[in-house]
Amino acid sequence: MKAETITGDSEQQGAREVELTERVTRSFEGASDPRLKAILTSLTRHLHAFVREVRLTEDEWNAGIRFLTDVGHTTDDKRQEFILLSDTLGVSMQVITVNNRAYRDATEATVFGPFFVDGAPQIPLGGDMAAGATGEPCWVEGTVRDTDGNPVPGARIEVWEADEDGMYDVQYDDDRTAARAHLFSAADGGFRFWGITPTPYPIPDDGPVGGMLARAGRSPMRASHLHFMVSSPGLRTLVTHIFVNGDPLLSTDSVFGVKESLIKDFVRQDPGTATPDGRTIAGTWARVSFDIVLAPVGIG
Amino acid sequence: MKAETITGDSEQQGAREVELTERVTRSFEGASDPRLKAILTSLTRHLHAFVREVRLTEDEWNAGIRFLTDVGHTTDDKRQEFILLSDTLGVSMQVITVNNRAYRDATEATVFGPFFVDGAPQIPLGGDMAAGATGEPCWVEGTVRDTDGNPVPGARIEVWEADEDGMYDVQYDDDRTAARAHLFSAADGGFRFWGITPTPYPIPDDGPVGGMLARAGRSPMRASHLHFMVSSPGLRTLVTHIFVNGDPLLSTDSVFGVKESLIKDFVRQDPGTATPDGRTIAGTWARVSFDIVLAPVGIG
Ligand SMILES: [Fe+2]
Ligand SMILES: [Fe+2]
Repeated sequence: MKAETITGDSEQQGAREVELTERVTRSFEGASDPRLKAILTSLTRHLHAFVREVRLTEDEWNAGIRFLTDVGHTTDDKRQEFILLSDTLGVSMQVITVNNRAYRDATEATVFGPFFVDGAPQIPLGGDMAAGATGEPCWVEGTVRDTDGNPVPGARIEVWEADEDGMYDVQYDDDRTAARAHLFSAADGGFRFWGITPTPYPIPDDGPVGGMLARAGRSPMRASHLHFMVSSPGLRTLVTHIFVNGDPLLSTDSVFGVKESLIKDFVRQDPGTATPDGRTIAGTWARVSFDIVLAPVGIG
Repeated sequence: MKAETITGDSEQQGAREVELTERVTRSFEGASDPRLKAILTSLTRHLHAFVREVRLTEDEWNAGIRFLTDVGHTTDDKRQEFILLSDTLGVSMQVITVNNRAYRDATEATVFGPFFVDGAPQIPLGGDMAAGATGEPCWVEGTVRDTDGNPVPGARIEVWEADEDGMYDVQYDDDRTAARAHLFSAADGGFRFWGITPTPYPIPDDGPVGGMLARAGRSPMRASHLHFMVSSPGLRTLVTHIFVNGDPLLSTDSVFGVKESLIKDFVRQDPGTATPDGRTIAGTWARVSFDIVLAPVGIG
């Protein structure tokens, strides 16, 4: 027998769906923590709205349960597949955005990523954070200011990046420390250091999230970037990257970290070009400028 | 220093949040499967709306990642904590609702649950499905009809339930088969069998989902119920329960399976009351009537 489509009772159906959502949200009324209640209520409303909107089938629900189970079983002490899932759906970046409100010309934040290490070595102004990491030398300079334009002296600037093979030091087995450091801004807010020109790398794509990206026709690659975390008392800590103007991956960054305002000109210099600090470099090198503006704390 | 709240740039902030969601949904444009694209797009929109609506903090996001990790690590071949999570947020019930559209007076569906077993023994009309399971004997009778009121003869009726300790046979270690059976409706659509009066039981609450229920002030208990799955060629298979009128757990069923139309009067009979089939029962027994109406297949 061939199934025909028979029109159901739409009004009754809609009432049942709405009533169910209301019943579930009412179940959280007894939560002792009002914040937990607000979060569970909103989450329930949005998950139910999703199910109703796409008319999720039972087979699709089963596939979703299997996918989440696979994400859970891929996650261990070394691998956080739920964070990858959050990142690749742009949820992590939305959390960052919500928690770093726009304020005058304060520099935009982006994702923290998994590769920051506390206690990276200090370098002096003009020092070399590459510390042996392979890659094209890159001179990075700029100033740290507040949103009134005042220089911020003594701001702590943490920087970290991948080497030219797209690998962070912690991804090697040999306990090396390279391409990560911290320095402090000068009395005029200025900073400068040698790093390496950023290169792209993929997020781990051999798990279920990689499978989702493949089926969605998406690349696992992150656009080339250099990480910054900048802090100073009384100012909002900034976690951000700078990206390389012209990188073809800018528009398809797998975790949606790119903001127009964070794309910078990394200007390639011919071999032999004099460096700002009189260094002699045989091959090409690059230079980039990044002026940082820190918001005050307590932006509501 | 005491943080004051400083008003951020709301227009700029809103634009950034909206732009991010649009960027993520555009990333699915290359998906080869249009259904996958629709699902990921809707899911992304609703997750982002949730984050924006509650202004999810980074600490809360971290707590969410830890919770999901815990759910993943609690899930194995025997225990499906993601399904419990879906059940306790009413998502499973919403999927059931969406996929069993209202149609005339067709009996409402509810959750399938984890305790159905294929190949349960056949019993004759009037037979005993308890098969030694402890509990008060309960006579169950009714008819199976279609939505035009025609009797449905030969409908396959699967029934299963917990014993008086709230345990299904498969939860014991001794391979017993009890309190589950199938039978077929008679030429006039009628059916009748002996079961046991349903009793309540908790969903597994020693994992992260149980922790969530406790913090939300919710009970893990399911309202007392008897499971049915009724099928006949050309008609939509019905998966449902009947619930016990007067059960104090009806309004707090942990998986939101209760529908008003599925609450039935289980009428207690004094010891010695004659049974419909001339059986002699020393203690009390109960009887309940459940008339089943099956929708046609292909309700759109
Ligand atoms: Fe990175
Ligand atoms: Fe059950």
